Amino acid sequence: MVNDRLHVAFLGGLGEVGKNLMVLETTDDIIIVDAGIGFPEEDMFGVNLLIPDLTYLRRNASRVRAIFITHGHEDHIGGLPYLLQEVDAPVYSTRLTQGLIRARLKERKLAASVDLRLIDPDEDEPVRIGSFAIDAFRVCHSIPDAVGYAVQTPAGLVVITGDFKLDPAPVDGHPTDLEKLRSYADHNPLLLISDSVHIETPGVTPPESMVVESIDSIVANAPGRVILATFASSISRIQQVMNIAHRHQRKVVCYGRSLQNNVRVALELGYLEPPEGALIKKPADAAAVAPNKLLCICTGSQGEPMAVLSRIAQGEHHEIEVHEGDTVIVSASPIPGNETSVYRVINDLFSRGADVIYSARALVHVSGHASHDELRQMLELVKPRYVLPTHGEARHLQLYARMAQATGVQAERILLGRIGSQFSFEDGVMSAIGSVPSGTVYLGQGTTGEIADGTVLERRLLARDGVLSVVLTIDRRSGDLLAEPDIEARGFVPGPRNGHVLEEARHHLRDVLMSNGHRLHETERPERIVRHVLEQYLFAQTKRRPMVVPTVVEV
Amino acid sequence: MVNDRLHVAFLGGLGEVGKNLMVLETTDDIIIVDAGIGFPEEDMFGVNLLIPDLTYLRRNASRVRAIFITHGHEDHIGGLPYLLQEVDAPVYSTRLTQGLIRARLKERKLAASVDLRLIDPDEDEPVRIGSFAIDAFRVCHSIPDAVGYAVQTPAGLVVITGDFKLDPAPVDGHPTDLEKLRSYADHNPLLLISDSVHIETPGVTPPESMVVESIDSIVANAPGRVILATFASSISRIQQVMNIAHRHQRKVVCYGRSLQNNVRVALELGYLEPPEGALIKKPADAAAVAPNKLLCICTGSQGEPMAVLSRIAQGEHHEIEVHEGDTVIVSASPIPGNETSVYRVINDLFSRGADVIYSARALVHVSGHASHDELRQMLELVKPRYVLPTHGEARHLQLYARMAQATGVQAERILLGRIGSQFSFEDGVMSAIGSVPSGTVYLGQGTTGEIADGTVLERRLLARDGVLSVVLTIDRRSGDLLAEPDIEARGFVPGPRNGHVLEEARHHLRDVLMSNGHRLHETERPERIVRHVLEQYLFAQTKRRPMVVPTVVEV
Repeated sequence: MVNDRLHVAFLGGLGEVGKNLMVLETTDDIIIVDAGIGFPEEDMFGVNLLIPDLTYLRRNASRVRAIFITHGHEDHIGGLPYLLQEVDAPVYSTRLTQGLIRARLKERKLAASVDLRLIDPDEDEPVRIGSFAIDAFRVCHSIPDAVGYAVQTPAGLVVITGDFKLDPAPVDGHPTDLEKLRSYADHNPLLLISDSVHIETPGVTPPESMVVESIDSIVANAPGRVILATFASSISRIQQVMNIAHRHQRKVVCYGRSLQNNVRVALELGYLEPPEGALIKKPADAAAVAPNKLLCICTGSQGEPMAVLSRIAQGEHHEIEVHEGDTVIVSASPIPGNETSVYRVINDLFSRGADVIYSARALVHVSGHASHDELRQMLELVKPRYVLPTHGEARHLQLYARMAQATGVQAERILLGRIGSQFSFEDGVMSAIGSVPSGTVYLGQGTTGEIADGTVLERRLLARDGVLSVVLTIDRRSGDLLAEPDIEARGFVPGPRNGHVLEEARHHLRDVLMSNGHRLHETERPERIVRHVLEQYLFAQTKRRPMVVPTVVEV
Repeated sequence: MVNDRLHVAFLGGLGEVGKNLMVLETTDDIIIVDAGIGFPEEDMFGVNLLIPDLTYLRRNASRVRAIFITHGHEDHIGGLPYLLQEVDAPVYSTRLTQGLIRARLKERKLAASVDLRLIDPDEDEPVRIGSFAIDAFRVCHSIPDAVGYAVQTPAGLVVITGDFKLDPAPVDGHPTDLEKLRSYADHNPLLLISDSVHIETPGVTPPESMVVESIDSIVANAPGRVILATFASSISRIQQVMNIAHRHQRKVVCYGRSLQNNVRVALELGYLEPPEGALIKKPADAAAVAPNKLLCICTGSQGEPMAVLSRIAQGEHHEIEVHEGDTVIVSASPIPGNETSVYRVINDLFSRGADVIYSARALVHVSGHASHDELRQMLELVKPRYVLPTHGEARHLQLYARMAQATGVQAERILLGRIGSQFSFEDGVMSAIGSVPSGTVYLGQGTTGEIADGTVLERRLLARDGVLSVVLTIDRRSGDLLAEPDIEARGFVPGPRNGHVLEEARHHLRDVLMSNGHRLHETERPERIVRHVLEQYLFAQTKRRPMVVPTVVEV
């Protein structure tokens, strides 16, 4: 019966870190889990963020019944404004996650038009949508109010962990709900879709309480001001830092727009409860507080050049000037790819006299993701027929597969895919692996404008060897060259033995054009000839390939 | 007495990693220790390598008596071809280091003209040069034949560790010479100049023998071909891998030009002794060997895009196609900044079916540098009056200083500087901290051509928002515009609401030029006007700042 069929497709989350988006689909209905964005790598010039290609959902928009969000991080909610332009469906989430989504939609003036609904992980009755019944369960992660979903489908039960770890006594009091997970196991789950991104780390992720102890002792011994940088979304960490500050008679002040926004939402919804009098609401009021009575929380833990910590390190922040006696805590680990920027900031802070404490020196951060043994524990708890690791690059998925095999899962029950993979199930068995249209859309700065692959490539070429603007002036009637070709170079370096290479290239180009025998304006594409001649000549002479931008002026 | 004065200046090695170069100077004499290059960061577009600004040595070339090299790594010898253009002095080193230097000079046809001399760390008689007497002592590092130097100067004894660790039983049989170091302590050393770059790592660096055990067990269990990537200079590691291969009936073949060159030098000088029949000299002969009888050593452990391992991962290597059953060992840790490239290669290798073993999975690499406790042990052994940490970024120097204070060294005896710092000593006491001309010279690809700061900045701008080539054609006599301005864009994205912005910019430019009141060819710099008008207009419309390259054609 065709109605027993379930398709699970990934528009993000397989073979990459960031921009998670998965699609659960029967003949009549589609539900979406998460809608994240990703951040560009260093050589994606001028690209500000990455969203999944939504072609598949655009084509099937009429069947999309709902969107379920696991938690409020950018790589799970940041794509909602784009997704909601393609599909019209309610968005289910827990309360804090909803607050963060609403704030984000408000920025884009979309809040009024979106149907945001709450889902309660403490409720036993699932949400029924078309052929699906969806139950949320609490998971512990680096942001409060995170959940996973157990989705009853015509083909069987699918358990989606979302991002999780198993910290048994998290500081917000909400551990991962092992009870519920155990109960799912009784229903012979068809499929476990599991976080896998920290599979490389052996053992278990240390508890957040150890970070709290470590930061407490640093603050206790700090002679002057303390500046702590962390992720704007680390609400539990921020709560703990407020408690620590209060314990040591310090007031807390927050810097950085994203941090201030998140703190405002969390305060409104009761997810942050600063001790009485601990929080200075207006940063300007912090100036009146003695340095050793102050703790500043700020953004920039990833070395982002425009964030508060970078500006402090550069001496460019209006309110905070760092000096001898200050203690800076970088309460985050560099996300791979950000190491150079993070260490540049740390070096600069040291050079200004601050004592800088970062992960190499003390346990001032732990990941929100499960390490090897926790991932294994989750798998052994749920006992699914199939397991599908997600939220990781190729190596994480492969290492997860090895772990799963080590626990006795047969290789053919471990599903590995990449972006666009679609796994189909029928009668409790996987029937096929196909694919759906997928990819990454590059978005540029400050706008919703897409940047084509070609543009990024052009920028990469421009960055490598620079550019030559070449102008030919020809007589409209005779086709004769009216002047020497004009060459302007930017970002191009000819090399020591090629000091006159541009001059020579000009002559060479003229000679080729003159000897061409026929008149230039009759040539099909004179621009093409110019580019070809110059590219060849310059590479032969200099081993470089500057971009050649020709213009032919006919007068 | 002015002749008692000693100046120690740094043209590299302080406040940065890479391009080590220090200058020891009395009134009449200068000796140089090391002449390294550095490698560019990601946003130094088109820059291939970095050398120290040699202005100071150029000005004082007549007093330079000798150059001493500690070991054969690029960040210690790579700058020699440039330094030797500025100063004419003999280069002292141990035998393997000399072999590597000679090979490097030969590539540049400089070998014949340079006076290369051997220094023997087992010799007790120091080399006397002007007012200096220099004694070499063995240190253990990740390349054989590494030494540090003890330099007797008019102001006192200066001990320079070079790059070192204290592995008590290194696989090449040559530990750091603690005996000699202890004997220096008896002469009340004035100054210890110490490696500091691994100060962040607690404890001691694990012994190389643990890496050997770990690789041995991987090779023992590998079902098919083994491919091992490591630094081309890791001669001891390469020797051990040859031994391991032989133990498991595998033959070894080397891929990658720098690796093959270093292996050739090490073989010639007897620093590599492959077991009988273990080494396949010609890579082409490897095709005849069964995969499970083969071990390939190759370059590319840092994810360098043109190196062997990257090309294998991309499926672009002519001789090695990786597949299921192959085992790849990345026997190196990513140098900070290279993480993204390294993990990209590892992901690609996994995707091709290989099992990839890298530092997160097994101990397949250890650093050549001393960790915290070893640095402390060195300091306590030498008991200098002053200590000067080097070979590190600001944070390493600062953390070294904290370690030194913890061992009881007074803060004023711990010398921290940055590139260009010059410390002066007189009568056994530091008398001043000054500075000498210093900086970094960028070199481009394949040549010795310098790249100016401005060029790198231009490339950064090109990469960010692209470029517009703008052509104005005006009548030479009347100054009238003869056609609409012509605009060609590359790497520029106008944004969603600015689809026609280039067209509009053209009109705007024309209108401004027409309304200007006076004729264009009489304007002092028509190019400047074009640039100014377009930059302003495009920023207002698109919030972007493409580079504008104007050309004015007069006909």
